[in-house]
Amino acid sequence: MDVKAEDFFFGGLKTGNTTNKLGSSVNLVNVDKIAGLNTLGISLARIDFAPFGLNPPHTHPRATEILTVIEGELYVGFVTSNLNGGGNKLFTKLLKKGDVFVFPQGLIHFQFNKGHTNAVAIAGLSSQNPGAITIANAVFGSKLPISDDVLAKAFQVDKKTVDWLQAQFWMDNNN
Amino acid sequence: MDVKAEDFFFGGLKTGNTTNKLGSSVNLVNVDKIAGLNTLGISLARIDFAPFGLNPPHTHPRATEILTVIEGELYVGFVTSNLNGGGNKLFTKLLKKGDVFVFPQGLIHFQFNKGHTNAVAIAGLSSQNPGAITIANAVFGSKLPISDDVLAKAFQVDKKTVDWLQAQFWMDNNN
Amino acid sequence: MDVKAEDFFFGGLKTGNTTNKLGSSVNLVNVDKIAGLNTLGISLARIDFAPFGLNPPHTHPRATEILTVIEGELYVGFVTSNLNGGGNKLFTKLLKKGDVFVFPQGLIHFQFNKGHTNAVAIAGLSSQNPGAITIANAVFGSKLPISDDVLAKAFQVDKKTVDWLQAQFWMDNNN
Amino acid sequence: MDVKAEDFFFGGLKTGNTTNKLGSSVNLVNVDKIAGLNTLGISLARIDFAPFGLNPPHTHPRATEILTVIEGELYVGFVTSNLNGGGNKLFTKLLKKGDVFVFPQGLIHFQFNKGHTNAVAIAGLSSQNPGAITIANAVFGSKLPISDDVLAKAFQVDKKTVDWLQAQFWMDNNN
Amino acid sequence: MDVKAEDFFFGGLKTGNTTNKLGSSVNLVNVDKIAGLNTLGISLARIDFAPFGLNPPHTHPRATEILTVIEGELYVGFVTSNLNGGGNKLFTKLLKKGDVFVFPQGLIHFQFNKGHTNAVAIAGLSSQNPGAITIANAVFGSKLPISDDVLAKAFQVDKKTVDWLQAQFWMDNNN
Amino acid sequence: MDVKAEDFFFGGLKTGNTTNKLGSSVNLVNVDKIAGLNTLGISLARIDFAPFGLNPPHTHPRATEILTVIEGELYVGFVTSNLNGGGNKLFTKLLKKGDVFVFPQGLIHFQFNKGHTNAVAIAGLSSQNPGAITIANAVFGSKLPISDDVLAKAFQVDKKTVDWLQAQFWMDNNN
Repeated sequence: MDVKAEDFFFGGLKTGNTTNKLGSSVNLVNVDKIAGLNTLGISLARIDFAPFGLNPPHTHPRATEILTVIEGELYVGFVTSNLNGGGNKLFTKLLKKGDVFVFPQGLIHFQFNKGHTNAVAIAGLSSQNPGAITIANAVFGSKLPISDDVLAKAFQVDKKTVDWLQAQFWMDNNN
Repeated sequence: MDVKAEDFFFGGLKTGNTTNKLGSSVNLVNVDKIAGLNTLGISLARIDFAPFGLNPPHTHPRATEILTVIEGELYVGFVTSNLNGGGNKLFTKLLKKGDVFVFPQGLIHFQFNKGHTNAVAIAGLSSQNPGAITIANAVFGSKLPISDDVLAKAFQVDKKTVDWLQAQFWMDNNN
Repeated sequence: MDVKAEDFFFGGLKTGNTTNKLGSSVNLVNVDKIAGLNTLGISLARIDFAPFGLNPPHTHPRATEILTVIEGELYVGFVTSNLNGGGNKLFTKLLKKGDVFVFPQGLIHFQFNKGHTNAVAIAGLSSQNPGAITIANAVFGSKLPISDDVLAKAFQVDKKTVDWLQAQFWMDNNN
Repeated sequence: MDVKAEDFFFGGLKTGNTTNKLGSSVNLVNVDKIAGLNTLGISLARIDFAPFGLNPPHTHPRATEILTVIEGELYVGFVTSNLNGGGNKLFTKLLKKGDVFVFPQGLIHFQFNKGHTNAVAIAGLSSQNPGAITIANAVFGSKLPISDDVLAKAFQVDKKTVDWLQAQFWMDNNN
Repeated sequence: MDVKAEDFFFGGLKTGNTTNKLGSSVNLVNVDKIAGLNTLGISLARIDFAPFGLNPPHTHPRATEILTVIEGELYVGFVTSNLNGGGNKLFTKLLKKGDVFVFPQGLIHFQFNKGHTNAVAIAGLSSQNPGAITIANAVFGSKLPISDDVLAKAFQVDKKTVDWLQAQFWMDNNN
Repeated sequence: MDVKAEDFFFGGLKTGNTTNKLGSSVNLVNVDKIAGLNTLGISLARIDFAPFGLNPPHTHPRATEILTVIEGELYVGFVTSNLNGGGNKLFTKLLKKGDVFVFPQGLIHFQFNKGHTNAVAIAGLSSQNPGAITIANAVFGSKLPISDDVLAKAFQVDKKTVDWLQAQFWMDNNN
């Protein structure tokens, strides 16, 4: 094969459009965008937040994420796995510009801009194709829908509530 | 070190107690229970289901699961990652005794006993310590709780509903 | 590619036919049977034993095995690698229903049904394609045969004995 | 062990001091700075450049690097491995703000600020401890020095030139 | 820790003593002999053969071996895994000085000096601790012995033959 | 696919031609030469040295090397990564016939025959495709050339010296 500099380059990690319900936008540069990442075990993302913008609880099934704030402030957190009967622990931190935080592989995490100005973060992810699972979307917005028997029992609500949730529009802030 | 046969043995994968809200019980044999699994990249679980018992939507952050039904029947499914704007797809199957199904690493999945008799499954997991994250518990039952600002926005409900959910008891069926 | 639920499903892990010389039958569900296992590092097997049935000494060149007995009892064991002049150690255990045992990657191991009833085991293996090498078959039943000079010297028997062994039928209990 | 949010946090990825010979400063956040990165296969760096600042030719022995420019512009490049008699190829690109580039594991690469304003980049690296080898420093500035017989022959210069180079001060811009 | 050149050095890969039943001697340099090999995934061996010397059928449970002959000639071979009902295939080659051969991970293989002069080989192995299992020793010479019920059935011989084999001295040519 | 013994064999690791500027010759047997090495994580090399022959400072971006001297003597060394402000350390050793040395992944290393007779080494490398980067060639002999602004600043010499170096012929001793 005839590789060239373009195979290791991506030109579009610009300001994301945050004019949406969540007030956030994730722009991931994975192996689909840079072919040269193949087998190299890494990718990179830019995340933009409007004031009060939220990157909602989600997981990356194949990657750990390390994130730094380059503009504004972010309230971030992740929840640990079930702990031998000790429940799930929430770890949070308010990150200022220049702070760094790690979200271990597969754990549910979020970033929230509590402030009145925009916020921007850059993240490295430990896979050429980390994947993203927005929890609410996967649970209540899948095609086909998960049986409301299953969701009503799992989330301790009645089926009508499940059906109402499943009827909502579940926006995906990943571009 | 002086290894012996006991280091590769666990004696307790017996019938699980399913007399609980979910009607299910997961008994995982990981490196905490068999020291000899260290560095070997595998573990095993037995899952018991009462009639209408549910192993609710959950993920394993560090493992793929391969499961076979050894008694009864199970309705199983998993949801794919966010798909480049194409949403999250649900894949399901009704498994009879002797059928096998795979839940790829980190994806949200569940098993549900729709039948009137008990069901039992045995699963292999591709990690000595796969971890388990019950989605509802991690989202609504963590200690400390996730901010209701975050959850209300992510799940498109009002804060009162979030607070009510967070006040429930979230049972962990993993032993 | 257009993946679907069938790519993660296998329907044939039924009772194995143990009417053979060894009185045992191994049914492995690897990536050849479930395409969705590709890159996921795991597979699963069901092993059936008639009374006095034997799964003879063998290795998996690319996987550790974790096994549980779901019916009957099994006498199981593995032999360690050569130990710096200290020889090869045998580790054994009599497993009852619900017991779990680990056979580390590449080590010679066996399972033997000493009892008067059938026995059944389910095993997880830490590779999408673990492979199996039945020792007696690989040593005495290969095509072409290993030189009897080599085998006579290695097994401390005369060439006539080697030739007699090589003339036997070496049954493979892996389906 | 009692993990806490602080184990996943680092507070110091601030503007680097570029008042030095090279006009650049690398601030790497690896497992030495965030203990929670252990086994997670990733780290992150901020690189600051004064006008005409250079991050000189170097390698990371255990990591691929993916970099994005968040301020200014950078001229970047890497050299391929020896290619079956076809020599070493240089791949370069002028990166503007928001552009992304990949430096594959172990290859010699550099970043150069050709502009009249400061430049800043954020990079993800595919190891908890990627390491850095500044080529000139390792070759001419090691303690003890490499034999001048070796370096004279390798770099096709006389020993006096080698000795003169070895007498220089070789600044390390990694903090 | 204070590493030094000695941590990456081993001084004893000298001519092996082949005055033994097998006429061969294996000298493996693994992480027990060079501490600096830790985590680096490789080791090296020298194998000496007297005329008609044999390195008998064995496996490395955690490594592939690549071998080159540096003196004399060697007849080498390995047997494939059980092949979906197609049996185990033997692959052999007569190696002259300077020839190279690969024994894939976990497969049973041997090297035999058919000639009238000494032979010497150097091998690389893809693990810091590849292990070695001499088949005859592990099967018939383990401590404690494998049950003769198991071995008689597996090797299609009577128990008296098994008992006789188990009473022999099984030499280990690994130093 | 129809594999055969030839897929695991290479016949050409003969004495290398050292009649060149460096007085050395590297003959690497990687997956390009033995197709059966695919996915197996290892390769092997023979290195020949004329008297005063040098295998100049180089790295393997994807492999650790373990080397043994089979003829003559070799003065060998490697330089550590930048050490948190402590500089780069040189580790060296004079190897006699039968001595073994390890060059950890990605580190700059060399082998030099200080003696009046030929020397020969055999090395194992922990990758099917380790790659080789001869430092001087990659820095001063790449096509296209690295900007002399970059090299003059990095190596603390004037641009005329860089241009002179770039005009030299940079021999590659890897076959």
